[in-house]
Amino acid sequence: MRVHGIPTRTIQPLADGSAVEIIDQTRLPHRYEIKRLASWQEAAEAISVMRVRGAPLIGATAAYGLALACQADTNDTALHAAAAGLIETRPTAVNLRWALERMLSRLLPLAPGQRREAAWHEAAAICEEDVAQNQAIGRHGLEIIRAIHQRKGGAVNLMTHCNAGWLATVDWGTALAPVYAAFEAGIALDVWVSETRPRNQGAALTAWELEQHGVPHTVIADNAAGHLMQKGEVDLIIVGADRVAANGDVANKIGTYLKALAARDNGVPFYVAAPGPSIDFRLASGAGIPIEQRAAREVTHIAGRDVEGELAEVQLTPDASPALNPAFDVTPARLVTGLITERGVCAASTAGLRGLYPEEGANFIPLPTSPINGGGV
Amino acid sequence: MRVHGIPTRTIQPLADGSAVEIIDQTRLPHRYEIKRLASWQEAAEAISVMRVRGAPLIGATAAYGLALACQADTNDTALHAAAAGLIETRPTAVNLRWALERMLSRLLPLAPGQRREAAWHEAAAICEEDVAQNQAIGRHGLEIIRAIHQRKGGAVNLMTHCNAGWLATVDWGTALAPVYAAFEAGIALDVWVSETRPRNQGAALTAWELEQHGVPHTVIADNAAGHLMQKGEVDLIIVGADRVAANGDVANKIGTYLKALAARDNGVPFYVAAPGPSIDFRLASGAGIPIEQRAAREVTHIAGRDVEGELAEVQLTPDASPALNPAFDVTPARLVTGLITERGVCAASTAGLRGLYPEEGANFIPLPTSPINGGGV
Repeated sequence: MRVHGIPTRTIQPLADGSAVEIIDQTRLPHRYEIKRLASWQEAAEAISVMRVRGAPLIGATAAYGLALACQADTNDTALHAAAAGLIETRPTAVNLRWALERMLSRLLPLAPGQRREAAWHEAAAICEEDVAQNQAIGRHGLEIIRAIHQRKGGAVNLMTHCNAGWLATVDWGTALAPVYAAFEAGIALDVWVSETRPRNQGAALTAWELEQHGVPHTVIADNAAGHLMQKGEVDLIIVGADRVAANGDVANKIGTYLKALAARDNGVPFYVAAPGPSIDFRLASGAGIPIEQRAAREVTHIAGRDVEGELAEVQLTPDASPALNPAFDVTPARLVTGLITERGVCAASTAGLRGLYPEEGANFIPLPTSPINGGGV
Repeated sequence: MRVHGIPTRTIQPLADGSAVEIIDQTRLPHRYEIKRLASWQEAAEAISVMRVRGAPLIGATAAYGLALACQADTNDTALHAAAAGLIETRPTAVNLRWALERMLSRLLPLAPGQRREAAWHEAAAICEEDVAQNQAIGRHGLEIIRAIHQRKGGAVNLMTHCNAGWLATVDWGTALAPVYAAFEAGIALDVWVSETRPRNQGAALTAWELEQHGVPHTVIADNAAGHLMQKGEVDLIIVGADRVAANGDVANKIGTYLKALAARDNGVPFYVAAPGPSIDFRLASGAGIPIEQRAAREVTHIAGRDVEGELAEVQLTPDASPALNPAFDVTPARLVTGLITERGVCAASTAGLRGLYPEEGANFIPLPTSPINGGGV
């Protein structure tokens, strides 16, 4: 997609293999800054503090993290150590595990001398596949938007949550790929952007990328989503996913479940856009998805641009008040109208997913179970 | 309730009738400041910009606003003008209309020379009744909490939304009155405080008053409410109300409806605490409740305490992104387990309310319909 008119991806390797460049998303929407990651540790830090975020982009960054690890040392021990360090950064998005397992499966059978080039090649392939998958999701989702537009005869009011746009992927996005496809197709639409507390990826990232692309949108507090649906102001919802279980349960940014409930209560179609690498066929249901607990400070403090134009953080709560910050919730498959994948739209069910992915899980080298902080409230 | 150990009410007249003192709630939790209101216009400004907020406190402040108007001029034209100015400050809380109509009904039949003293007396009576009503709500709600505590045998995890504590009333609160009553009764409990974007009355006010009183609590993003209910971490929800329709539909702070949906989906009891003056028996259902649209800036900007300890505002969104800010939503009666009133707990239904309020609406002098910005999304 374009930033200030220039075609841009969220992650790009330098030609000499010394680093990859990312957009530091913790600085948006007020600063557009490119950051170089020159080691797997820097890649892990970028994932952990959310300079990059979004399930597909986490996967792509982890893949490049292993390529950076190969720059330093290509032996098995070094690669396993890098993979172990990267997998622990964030527990919920399954793309992270998927990308690391794919990289190890590709690299470990090779002689150490062949691994460096293969790592860069494989990470780039993951990125290219992500872009192609998202474009396919865009095409399939476009047909859903087009049908609503034809039935309604006016601008389609679409709601999304968090950021599942191109900033969450290598390019195009998952939930927003259909939005961009519809916009390019000349379909009038307006996007309700829920701000997505506590990290405000909606207000900071989705609003920014829609604005860069010229797509009409309106930011709302997360709390307003149900009211807008009650008032008939939402024609459909499309969100992304950090992990889809084999039965169609969906882990996505905290608050997604509340939107799904309101959609059901008001007859609003609720779609989840997710590429194959976000689907965890090893997991029977959403009950097994680890829910990341992030720092309380993300709730008690918030960052923005102050009156002098500087990035600043303010405290929202009394000093003595504790906070809890679960980063994801699980939307039961029963609330999901359909899954928009790169292979088409299917029911959020075991049968639906099996129909689109009959091969169901490649033979990756499984990573050891990591002691991630999952399973809590 | 106590502030820094000192018994305090949210609104107090000066003995000489020159002004009323309020806590400026726009400064909490970081500053505790008393502000004097010396005219009905200052009372209106305080309501409008939310130095005072919460349906019962809005009513009490409007009542004192008419007393302040009497200080300046006691003729009919002046009182009608003050009432017209005060009614337009906020459209959703029906206590505002109730208090103004009650004051006019008391004052207009009197000779102008008698009105000043009567006005101060009537406003004080409204405040005393509010305190008594809230204490009664506390007693009735305590029994609900006690029953859960006895069944569960451990600390009761209660969730609330926005601030319906003593800061929203003259004293004790509506939704939090049962919490304080249970706390005083020695029942172990922990309160989930949803921050309540965009104005963050949960994070700023509910957290502050619970902390002042020593009640265990944890602040969460509004988005986390559903997840906590899914995980069995919420035993009951009690919220306040800005207006209850005759059929039990409840207008309350934006986001209440989403919590009610999640409560229903997870079998969590969902109670609404509301005194008689918050019940609008003239309104058949919630569809007729005007929903206030507040400034977009409350979504695009947020205030807090900066690193230097100063109150500061930061911008969250891109400059070009518009925002929409509906301040309330309507929770259908079907999602409400019960209404906790000063007369007891009843079903959220026409029959339930009629059972507790058979006299159903006093003969107040009705205010002319105001051109408030209601009915929109």
